[in-house]
Amino acid sequence: MDNSAATDGIDAFKSAFRRHAAGVAVVTARAPDGHPVGFTATSLASLAAVPPLATFNMAQVSSSWPAMTVGNQVAIHMLGPHSRHLAERMAADHDLRFAGDHWHADDSGLPLLDGATAIAVGRIIDVHLVHNNAVVIVEIDHGILGEEDEALLYHERTYMRPHTIDD
Amino acid sequence: MDNSAATDGIDAFKSAFRRHAAGVAVVTARAPDGHPVGFTATSLASLAAVPPLATFNMAQVSSSWPAMTVGNQVAIHMLGPHSRHLAERMAADHDLRFAGDHWHADDSGLPLLDGATAIAVGRIIDVHLVHNNAVVIVEIDHGILGEEDEALLYHERTYMRPHTIDD
Repeated sequence: MDNSAATDGIDAFKSAFRRHAAGVAVVTARAPDGHPVGFTATSLASLAAVPPLATFNMAQVSSSWPAMTVGNQVAIHMLGPHSRHLAERMAADHDLRFAGDHWHADDSGLPLLDGATAIAVGRIIDVHLVHNNAVVIVEIDHGILGEEDEALLYHERTYMRPHTIDD
Repeated sequence: MDNSAATDGIDAFKSAFRRHAAGVAVVTARAPDGHPVGFTATSLASLAAVPPLATFNMAQVSSSWPAMTVGNQVAIHMLGPHSRHLAERMAADHDLRFAGDHWHADDSGLPLLDGATAIAVGRIIDVHLVHNNAVVIVEIDHGILGEEDEALLYHERTYMRPHTIDD
C-alpha cells in the first residue's frame, strides 16, 4: 500500500474500525430486580445457524450488565431507518430508555420494543469475560417479524442504510 | 407489531439476520505448517478500545481454523467497494485464496492482502469454543492504513456500501 502508516495498537484499532461499518441492533432483557434494561449494539454477529447462535459484546460497566446471566432471556431487535429513534434512545441516558410507550412486556416479562424490523428472542447460554468486557452468546428460540424496512447501519458516527455499489 | 409471526429458533434466527447488515473484513494468518490462510468475515466486532480488542466468529471446520491458536498473529483487513474482489476471493475455494500476487508476507511471515482500506494486526489472546464454532479474541498491536474508500457491507446476499438515510 502506498499510503501506509505504522501506528500503535489503539490508533490502529481506531483507524481500522473507522473504515468498517456495523449493523445496528438493540438488545433488551429483564434485570434480576425486574426492571427492563437494554442497549444499542453494533457488535451483533451470527455465530452458527444450527443451533441458531448469535453473539454481542459489551462492557461490564453497562447498565444492562446485571441481566447478562446464563439462562436469562434476551430480545435482539433488528432496526431500520424508520426505527432509528429506538437506536438513539437505547444509546442515550439509561434512566430514560424505557420511559414512554415505545415498548411492551411479553408474556414472560421480556421487554420488546415496538417498531423493530425483526426480533430474535433467545436465552443466554454463555458469557465469556475478557478484561472488563464480555462476549455474550445467545441461542435463539423464537422470533417476531415486524414491518419491512431497510437495514440500519452505524458508520462515521452516523446512522446510515445499505446501498448498491454500482450507481 | 401488526405483521408479527412466531417462528421456531432457526427460522427466527434467519429472518432476523436477513434484516441485519454486516461490515465485511478479511482475516488472514499463518498456519502451523507455514501456509497462509484466511477467510471473509461478516462477524468482526469491536470488544474494547483500551486495550484494543476485536472479536470474530468462525466454524471449527474452517480451513483457517488450524491458525487460530492463542499467541498466533492475525491480520484483520477492512475492505471497500474497490477491494470487493478480495472479499469474493477469500470466501471462495480455499485452495485458490492465495494463488496470485494480490498479497505479500510481512517481515514476520504474516500474509497481508494488497488493497485493503486498513489492516489491524494483532495476536489472538483467547479462543472461546461454542459447540462446533468459536469466538476468536484479538488484541491489536499495530496497523497499516490503505487507500481511502467507502466501507464494504454484506446484506441480502450482496456486497453493498453505506449511504445517508435522508435522500
